[in-house]
Amino acid sequence: EDLKKQQAVTSSDPYSSDPERHPLLHTNSLKPFNAEPPAEILSDSYITPSAFFFKRNHFPVPQVDPASYQLHVEGLSGGSLTLSLEELKTRFPKHTITATLQCAGNRRSEMHKAKQVKGLNWGIGAISTATWSGAKLRDVLLAAGYGSDVAQWARHVQFEGLDKDVTGAAYGGSIPLNKAVGEDGDVLLAYEMNGEALPADHGFPVRVVVPGVVGARSVKWLGKIIVSAEESSSHWQQNDYKGFSPGTDWDTVDHKSAPAIQELPVQSAITTPADGAVVDRSVEEVTVKGYAWSGGGREVVRVDVSLDGGKTWQVAQLRGSEHSPPLGRAWAWKLWEITAPLPPEAQELEIVCKAVDNSYNVQPDTFLPIWNLRGLLSNAWHRVKVKIAEDASED
Amino acid sequence: EDLKKQQAVTSSDPYSSDPERHPLLHTNSLKPFNAEPPAEILSDSYITPSAFFFKRNHFPVPQVDPASYQLHVEGLSGGSLTLSLEELKTRFPKHTITATLQCAGNRRSEMHKAKQVKGLNWGIGAISTATWSGAKLRDVLLAAGYGSDVAQWARHVQFEGLDKDVTGAAYGGSIPLNKAVGEDGDVLLAYEMNGEALPADHGFPVRVVVPGVVGARSVKWLGKIIVSAEESSSHWQQNDYKGFSPGTDWDTVDHKSAPAIQELPVQSAITTPADGAVVDRSVEEVTVKGYAWSGGGREVVRVDVSLDGGKTWQVAQLRGSEHSPPLGRAWAWKLWEITAPLPPEAQELEIVCKAVDNSYNVQPDTFLPIWNLRGLLSNAWHRVKVKIAEDASED
Ligand SMILES: [Mo]
Ligand SMILES: [Mo]
Repeated sequence: EDLKKQQAVTSSDPYSSDPERHPLLHTNSLKPFNAEPPAEILSDSYITPSAFFFKRNHFPVPQVDPASYQLHVEGLSGGSLTLSLEELKTRFPKHTITATLQCAGNRRSEMHKAKQVKGLNWGIGAISTATWSGAKLRDVLLAAGYGSDVAQWARHVQFEGLDKDVTGAAYGGSIPLNKAVGEDGDVLLAYEMNGEALPADHGFPVRVVVPGVVGARSVKWLGKIIVSAEESSSHWQQNDYKGFSPGTDWDTVDHKSAPAIQELPVQSAITTPADGAVVDRSVEEVTVKGYAWSGGGREVVRVDVSLDGGKTWQVAQLRGSEHSPPLGRAWAWKLWEITAPLPPEAQELEIVCKAVDNSYNVQPDTFLPIWNLRGLLSNAWHRVKVKIAEDASED
Repeated sequence: EDLKKQQAVTSSDPYSSDPERHPLLHTNSLKPFNAEPPAEILSDSYITPSAFFFKRNHFPVPQVDPASYQLHVEGLSGGSLTLSLEELKTRFPKHTITATLQCAGNRRSEMHKAKQVKGLNWGIGAISTATWSGAKLRDVLLAAGYGSDVAQWARHVQFEGLDKDVTGAAYGGSIPLNKAVGEDGDVLLAYEMNGEALPADHGFPVRVVVPGVVGARSVKWLGKIIVSAEESSSHWQQNDYKGFSPGTDWDTVDHKSAPAIQELPVQSAITTPADGAVVDRSVEEVTVKGYAWSGGGREVVRVDVSLDGGKTWQVAQLRGSEHSPPLGRAWAWKLWEITAPLPPEAQELEIVCKAVDNSYNVQPDTFLPIWNLRGLLSNAWHRVKVKIAEDASED
């Protein structure tokens, strides 16, 4: 109540109508709001509760009236279509997928530690998993007149959000046409997250969910869909969310030289124990938990865990969704766990994890060789150090 | 002539009718014949001449009479179809693709050096690129009655070669159904390589070419295609060509626990200079060349080269095929090249390369963490050492 009143008072602040958030979130930036859940929560349940799902906003959360909401679909040489929320819900079959979204900057703080980068200081929590329900983008595009012949002139599908910067420019991004219209792409225009209407922070009333692709393309508060020969001209498609060589700095970077990030590489991290935790020697064993995921619908097939900094490795147990996904459509992460005896002599453990996907892609050993000026795609092995405390009562 | 006579004399040897091979090939095993080209030849031309294309045979090369050749197509609950070579060539449209094939054991010798593995001691040359022409597997399956409803019961398409071991068991393998029947899979039943009939070593008269997938599934001397709910029961599908954790040895390995290798991870290697080469200081610069490729139709978007063992990196120039491939169908490698000044103080260079594909997957730094008992999927950074010779006439 008090908070609400405060917000009303400071109404010149464009962020004053942002929703309330869970106090346990770790906030990286308040305006715009960017926050991640505590790491342990990620492995507590396969589906991340919406309140803990990482928040990655570029601007103030727009206030959208569901009754007057309109979604516009257009394209260079095709038809245009305008849908109300009700029409989107009733004119198209409702599909549900379980998909993990990951920010391109997830785990940036570890790369930053190796060598300074520019960007929000994400820990390992800029990744979460939800069930998403909505219409298939493919179905809506077909209804708008973009059929199989669209590939003759179009290459991309652009999305514009209703969230805007101070100049009125909207957040935007695009995905390749074949991901948008392919039968196996599973791109949704989602109006539900975890069985409820989308929360304000996650794009109410409608967002795109592009499974297997960097979170930045899953545009929230969706206002417009444009079928085009070109990628989105937005800053985030053209001059951000791209990977560069470790030899490229702000003086030499040429954004035209790199492709916009779409599918993400294989990733994993340890959610527990936390770095710096203390394990009691008398317990005799340690349980390590984490997540693993890969982009492009590639399924994680193995997670290797080391207790000695990467010298020796054991295979963790994987836990996926109830039904194993069709090949190439593994959109959701695996949680993993291993319980191993404490090495008798060790006073400290350096726990390391690395994942392998079904194209047998692996994570790189270290951060410096994948360093890039924006600290994106930070997927080297995750390492946490744990102290072993000797039992005081021991002889 | 003399060689032919010798072969006739030793006709009890099942390998006596194997074809002649180019004397410059580096032979890893003579019976069956396994050989790779000298590394420099790989980067000499974008298309590898057929005589130099790596040879990977499991058994003697079968002698197939093209006039009586028959290809059988069958499946559990579908039709069966038998095609002559002439029918395969005339009843179906002829498609041509440029595709790189790579053996799962390419670069095994480097992994072996890090820690012993079991298998043929391939250098960096168990990879080559050719143009392949033939019928689309998809078209032949459709003609045999395996249409869009086949996905209701089938999951795999199996291939059997006409090459057999001493017990009469054929070489075989399988690929996932969606790769076989998908419009973008581009799987060919090829009868031409580089514009000519397939050479005997490469599967005359018909072989499968599965682009983006480990070479082992591109079955040569193709005899039978089986649409099935199951993977091939062959040794090479079930108990070989699978990846394992570095902690897994021959006592603990459970082949059921790992998926059969299909799409391969991102790969690159330096073809010139050779390891141990000497560069003259007076030349003042060094030119480094190599190849880079990734599985699953993922295009290589960058190759980083280091002259100092991986401390600093420069971006190489890439050379692809004339036309840039559609997204997700980049079946062929990139050749790359960089010319860089010799570091003034260095007496030796440790040249390193690593590639990045358009899912931003990268190669791992080192071999031990990806070590596996069969030495497969050996794609850590490639390193060569080069000496710099000072000019004798210098003061
Ligand atoms: Mo992001
Ligand atoms: Mo192979």
